[in-house]
Amino acid sequence: MVAKIIKTKLEEGAWIRQMFTEGQKLSAKFGADQVFDFSLGNPTLEPPLAFKNAALKILASEESGLHRYMDAHGLRDVRAYLAEKLSQEHQLPFTFHHITLCVGAGGGLNIVLKALLNPGDEVVILQPFFPEYRNYIANHGGVVREVATTRDFQIDFAALEAALCAETCAVLINSPNNPSGAVYSASDLRTLGDLLFKKSLGRQTPIYLITDEPYSKILFDEALFAPPIRYYEHTILVTSYSKALAIPGERIGYVALSPTCHDCADLVQALSWSQLALGFVNAPALMQRIIPVIGDQYVDIAPYQRNRDILWEHFQKLGVECVKPQGAFYIFPRTPIADDGVFACEALSERLVFVPGRAFGVPNHVRISFCFETEKILRSLKALANVFQCGRERKLQRADAPSL
Amino acid sequence: MVAKIIKTKLEEGAWIRQMFTEGQKLSAKFGADQVFDFSLGNPTLEPPLAFKNAALKILASEESGLHRYMDAHGLRDVRAYLAEKLSQEHQLPFTFHHITLCVGAGGGLNIVLKALLNPGDEVVILQPFFPEYRNYIANHGGVVREVATTRDFQIDFAALEAALCAETCAVLINSPNNPSGAVYSASDLRTLGDLLFKKSLGRQTPIYLITDEPYSKILFDEALFAPPIRYYEHTILVTSYSKALAIPGERIGYVALSPTCHDCADLVQALSWSQLALGFVNAPALMQRIIPVIGDQYVDIAPYQRNRDILWEHFQKLGVECVKPQGAFYIFPRTPIADDGVFACEALSERLVFVPGRAFGVPNHVRISFCFETEKILRSLKALANVFQCGRERKLQRADAPSL
Repeated sequence: MVAKIIKTKLEEGAWIRQMFTEGQKLSAKFGADQVFDFSLGNPTLEPPLAFKNAALKILASEESGLHRYMDAHGLRDVRAYLAEKLSQEHQLPFTFHHITLCVGAGGGLNIVLKALLNPGDEVVILQPFFPEYRNYIANHGGVVREVATTRDFQIDFAALEAALCAETCAVLINSPNNPSGAVYSASDLRTLGDLLFKKSLGRQTPIYLITDEPYSKILFDEALFAPPIRYYEHTILVTSYSKALAIPGERIGYVALSPTCHDCADLVQALSWSQLALGFVNAPALMQRIIPVIGDQYVDIAPYQRNRDILWEHFQKLGVECVKPQGAFYIFPRTPIADDGVFACEALSERLVFVPGRAFGVPNHVRISFCFETEKILRSLKALANVFQCGRERKLQRADAPSL
Repeated sequence: MVAKIIKTKLEEGAWIRQMFTEGQKLSAKFGADQVFDFSLGNPTLEPPLAFKNAALKILASEESGLHRYMDAHGLRDVRAYLAEKLSQEHQLPFTFHHITLCVGAGGGLNIVLKALLNPGDEVVILQPFFPEYRNYIANHGGVVREVATTRDFQIDFAALEAALCAETCAVLINSPNNPSGAVYSASDLRTLGDLLFKKSLGRQTPIYLITDEPYSKILFDEALFAPPIRYYEHTILVTSYSKALAIPGERIGYVALSPTCHDCADLVQALSWSQLALGFVNAPALMQRIIPVIGDQYVDIAPYQRNRDILWEHFQKLGVECVKPQGAFYIFPRTPIADDGVFACEALSERLVFVPGRAFGVPNHVRISFCFETEKILRSLKALANVFQCGRERKLQRADAPSL
C-alpha cells in the first residue's frame, strides 16, 4: 500500500491532476492545436542551435570516459568554468569547490535542503511559490513557513520579519518568480540581506538565503535581474538550464555556495553526501559537458516578451486585475470569481487550461503559462476574454444578489 | 550549519572518503596508471558503439520537442517498448502504466521507497549490501533491518524468516550482488517467493519484494540470471543502464511494477508524485529516447569474465578465502587480518585501493572492483599477492603470540 502521507498529498493535489487530465481529454477530442493548454511551464520553443551542436560535437569526439561516474559534485573542469564565470559576474572568489552540478533545480534544492535541515527546522517561502517547495522542505523533515507578499508580489518585509524565529533555518526565494513573474530589485535584496544579517546576530548558525533562479535569463523591459548572492553572505544559489536553454527534460543545473557562506567546507561535503544518499549520484554527464561549450548562448526570449506584452495588454483592456510580469513566462491574473478552482474548471469549456492559484498559496488567481508560440497566444485571446468577462458578469450578478 | 544527521553520517563514512582521497593522492604522486584503484564500480570500458550512434541519430533528427518535460513516468513510447519487452521475457501482462523511467537505479529505489514507506516501516536488506541502501531507506523514514547470508552469500532463509515481522514493508535484494558477485538461483527465488507469500497472509498489505538489478546483464559461466519478478507477485523491479551500457554518469534506468502487484494503480500514481516531490522530475530525456533505439545491444562482458577468472585463480593460488563471483564486476575476498579497515589502509602501500567490507555490512572482507582493462588487473597481481600474503604472515605470527 502506498505511504499514508502520499495518499493525503495525492488527494490534496487531485484537482491539479484532474485539470491536467481534462486538458489531455480536450486535446484528444479536439486536437492539441485546438486546446489552449497553458498549465505547464514546458517551453515549445526549441533549444538554441548551439545546444545541439555542442551535444553532437561531444558525442562524436574520440575522447574516452565521457559517460562515466565522476565526483558527486560533477566534473572538475565544468565546475571550474562556472566558478570562473560567477567570480567575474559577482566579484566573489568562487572556486570549483563551491559548485555542485545537479539534476535540475529540483534536484539542487533537494540536496541543499537535505544538507541543511534538522527535523523541525523552518524554511520560509513567499506566496505565491512553486508548489513543490512544500514537498522539498517536508522531504527532509523541515517545516514550511509561508509568508504573504505585497499586492504586487514583492517582499513584505514586515511580514517576513515577523515570520523569522529561532527555528528558521533558511529563507527560500525565487526571482523571477513562478507564478507571478515578479523580479526583486537590488534595493529590496539589500534590505533582505540586512534583515537576515540582523536576525542572524547572536545565533550559532546564521539564517541561510536559498535563491532558486531558473528564470534568471528570462527578463523583460528594463528589469535587470538583481543577483541575490551579492547582497547576503550566507547565500546558496540554485539554478538550472531548463529554461535558459529550453531543455527541461534533460535535468541539468548547479548549486553555487557563496564563498562567504557559513560552514562552507562542511556544506560542500554535505552536498556530495546528499547527492549520493538521495540517489541522484551526479548530474547527467553529457549535459554537464555541454555547459562550457555553449557558454552564454541562451534561448531567444523575444517570443516570451511578445507573449507577455500581448497578454498583459489584453488583460488591461478586459479590466482584469493583474501584476505585469517582469520575468519568467507566466502571468498570474486575479480571477473574476472567488473560487479559482471553479474558475479554472469553467475555463475548460473554452478549451483553456490554467493552474488555480491555490496551488501556489494564493487563491483567487490563476497561473497562465505563455512559453508557447505567439500564434497560439493570439488565437486564445477570444477565449480568454470570454472566461474572464463571463466571470465578471457573474460576479456583478452576485453583487446584486443580496438585494433580491 | 550542516544537518546533524549528516555530520554523523560523514563521520561514520570518514574512512571510505579517506581511502578515496588516499587513492587520489597516490594517483597524483605516481600517475593514475601506476595505482591500482579498485575502489569504484566505474567501468573504464567504453559503451557499445550502438549507444553513440543512437545518441547521434536522435540529436541530429529534425524532430521537435526532444528535450522537453514529459509525464513524470517518462515518455509513453519508451515505457510501452519496455512493457512489451518485459511481457515477452516474463509472460506477464505489462503495459506502459507499469513502467517509470528513473534517474538511475539510485533514483528508482528512492522513488519506490518514498512511495511505500510509512515512518517506522522496516526494509530488510541482506549482508553484504550496497552501502547507500541504508541511506535510501532512512531518507523516507524507514528502518533498516540487516540480515546475514550464508557463507557463500546466498539467502539464509531461517535468518530471513526470523527478521520478517508486522513492521516489514519490503525485502530489498540485489542479484547479481554488489559486492559479492552472488547470483540467486531460480530455486532460491521460488523459496523466497513462497516465504514472502506465507508471511503476507492475513496482513492488510503484503510484503513487497524490491529487486535491484543493475548487474543483470553481467553474468559469468552458466550462471543464468533468475528474474525475481517471476517468483513473487508483489515484486517491484528497479534497474539501470549504467552497467549494461557502461554509462553510469548518464543516470538512466527504470522501475517496473509487476502487473500482479498489490495496490498497483495507486503505486503508479505514487511513483509519479515521488518523482516530482524528490526533484528528479523525470529521467533525462535524451537517454530515455536511446533505449528503444539500441534494443539489446549491451557491453561486451568478456573482459569482465576474463578479469574475474584471473583474480579468482590468483586468490585460489594464494589460498585466500573467497566466493567465486557469478555476476557483476566485484570480488569480495576475506581479509587475512581481522580488521578490514586496517588491511585496506595497509594495501595503499602497494598502491592498491579497496573498499573495506564493513561498508557493506560484512567486516573481514574487502571489495575489489574489476571493471577495468585486463592489463591493469594483470599488473596488480604481484601487489595483491604481497598484501594478502603479508597479511597472512602477520596473522600466523599473531596466532603464535600467546605462547610468547
